[in-house]
Formats: sequence, structure tokens, C-alpha cells
Amino acid sequence: MILAEVTYITIGKGVSAANYVKSALEYFKRSGVRYYPNSMSTVLETETVEEAFRIIAGAENELIKSGVPRVETIIKIDHRVDLENSVSRKLEAIGEKIQE
Amino acid sequence: MILAEVTYITIGKGVSAANYVKSALEYFKRSGVRYYPNSMSTVLETETVEEAFRIIAGAENELIKSGVPRVETIIKIDHRVDLENSVSRKLEAIGEKIQE
Amino acid sequence: MILAEVTYITIGKGVSAANYVKSALEYFKRSGVRYYPNSMSTVLETETVEEAFRIIAGAENELIKSGVPRVETIIKIDHRVDLENSVSRKLEAIGEKIQE
Amino acid sequence: MILAEVTYITIGKGVSAANYVKSALEYFKRSGVRYYPNSMSTVLETETVEEAFRIIAGAENELIKSGVPRVETIIKIDHRVDLENSVSRKLEAIGEKIQE
Repeated sequence: MILAEVTYITIGKGVSAANYVKSALEYFKRSGVRYYPNSMSTVLETETVEEAFRIIAGAENELIKSGVPRVETIIKIDHRVDLENSVSRKLEAIGEKIQE
Repeated sequence: MILAEVTYITIGKGVSAANYVKSALEYFKRSGVRYYPNSMSTVLETETVEEAFRIIAGAENELIKSGVPRVETIIKIDHRVDLENSVSRKLEAIGEKIQE
Repeated sequence: MILAEVTYITIGKGVSAANYVKSALEYFKRSGVRYYPNSMSTVLETETVEEAFRIIAGAENELIKSGVPRVETIIKIDHRVDLENSVSRKLEAIGEKIQE
Repeated sequence: MILAEVTYITIGKGVSAANYVKSALEYFKRSGVRYYPNSMSTVLETETVEEAFRIIAGAENELIKSGVPRVETIIKIDHRVDLENSVSRKLEAIGEKIQE
């Protein structure tokens, strides 16, 4: 399993990005991917890195199509093959729980 | 208010970083900072960027002192002065809630 | 044009990553993409974000196939449509030149 | 030695960030730090992580004072104690040279 953390920073459309973040979250929802938003980014769980990038690119292109002239996308991929990686396993390993 | 997202990637001490992440979380707890861990990073809320960096540097130096030969620290700062920024305000703006 | 900055952090294979970075640079070279390495990352120039992700995923999967148990990949995408973005244009805009 | 890669993303002041990046580079120059700009970020070489953060915070606060309502700062720290880390050593290790 791949964990992919993504932050979209929209530039040229005012100071607030909340509406654009909401549209990216709606894109993730429609795609069927498991996604975990927090105050600075959203973590996606996918089977492959290609799947993570396909979904990240899709939401980014929707932001551009909606009229945003520039998007800086910051991504962190945790690609681990020595064990079955997941959001819940990583949280348990540090004594935390998944946000319901 | 400053939001500072930090991820410590420990290198040279095996594949798992969970114990090192736990020690960084304990450092944050002792420092009294408000901190919000998730599966890929921890978000700190501080009054100034200097305070965020002081705490991030402190936990990083503890990892090095504990014997880690190399640490890559990835940080995202959201520094906003047009309104009172906070984890809860950003989550509400995208229709989410804080993890209790 | 898309600018994509990528850093591969290999975990579980010792402290130095130089050989793995070199193999990623060789992958970029074989792919024909324009790439600009520096001491902390490599900047790729591609026509689309999908092309950037295809190349980044390809080099990452080669690192995993070569026996690295865990890779953290950090990516920054500069996706701009209001003008023709490029490494040289951005460097000129800040008074710098491309490294030959 | 610490290598600190920093990118300032200015929000709420138009699409181009070139002038703000130039003012950050001037701040780095005045501070006397060794700095290596590229098309997506600038790499600083400092003796300690505290020094790197002091300089990064200083340039960020100058951007805010110059009227930018929101800055997202993206930082990667390479903190290594098993050998004397430097921009030139890392570039040589991957077969590259420093930009003069």
C-alpha cells in the first residue's frame, strides 16, 4: 500500500484556498480513494504509486480548469514494501487513532 | 497564528521510524505546544514562526543525540496575517472537524 | 510547461543515498526528459503533470526493484497556465542562469 | 554542516513570485550565508539547524512586512552527522558540479 500526502496551494485567486481544497476533496470522494484530510494536507491510501499520481493529477487539472492560473502541489509519498503499510497501522504504531 | 507541518525521516536506523516519531511527539508534549499528529506528519500551532522552528529544531536535535546518523526534516509553514489562522478554523472551512 | 522538483529519500539501505540518486538520474536521462539536478533535489521540465508523474513513478519503482525496502518521495509541482513556464525563464526572472 | 532547501510561495499578491524570491535572495546575501538558488528553491549551507531556521524565518518575516498576506514556506533539512555534509560533496557524490 502507498500513502500519498498532497497539498494544493492555489495562486492568483485570492488569499483563501478553502473552496479549492473542498473541490479537491470532492474529486477524491468521487474517485473512490480512501482519503484522510487534515489542516495542512490530505493523505490518500492507494495500491500503487501510479494510482496515487493519477488521482492527484486529476484533482490538480480540475483546479486549473476551474480558472486557477497557478497551482503549487506538494506531495510526500511513503512507499514501503517490507510490510503492509496503511494509515491505521502507522497511527497505531505511534499510539494514535484514525479520525472517524 | 502559524501552522507548521513537520515530518522527520530518520535514515541509518532501520526501516521503521515509529519509535523516533513517538519521541518527537513526546518532545512536542513536553514543550506545551498544541500539536496534531496524522499518519504522514504532525501539525503544530504556534504564535510565531520562530517558536515553531525552535520546537522543530529541538526535537530534531534530540533524534540526532539519540544516535540517528541522518535526519531529513520536511516542513510546511502556513504563515497568514489577514485573519486569525488555526487548525480548527482551517478544518471548519473545508467541512471537517478536529480529531479529539 | 510543468516544473516538477523531486527528492527520493531511501530508507533501510544505509546512510548514503548517492548511488540511488545516480540511478534515478540515469532513469531520467534514458527517459529523454529535461532534468536539472542540485544538491537537494532534481527539477524536471515536462509538458503535462501526467508525464512528470509517469517519470517520477518509473524511477521510484526502479529503486524499490533494486531492493530498497522503503522510499519517501518528496515532490513540488509548479503548474502555471498564465504564461510559458520553464527552468530558464524562472531563473532569468530572479537574475540567475541555468547550470550548463 | 546542515543543508536547508527553502521555497517561499507568496499568496494574495498576484501570480508571479519572482520579485519576492529576489528579495529573499537579497536577505540571504546580506546574512552572509552560503546559498545556492535553483528554479524551484534555494539551498542554504549552515553550521546548525538553528542558524538555518533563523535565516529562513528572517526572510519570511520580511516578505510578510512587505505586505504579503500569506506565505507558505516549504523546507527540507538534510541533517547528517556521520560525515561533513556540504553542497559540493553531495554534488560530487552524484557526478555533478556546483553552479558558479
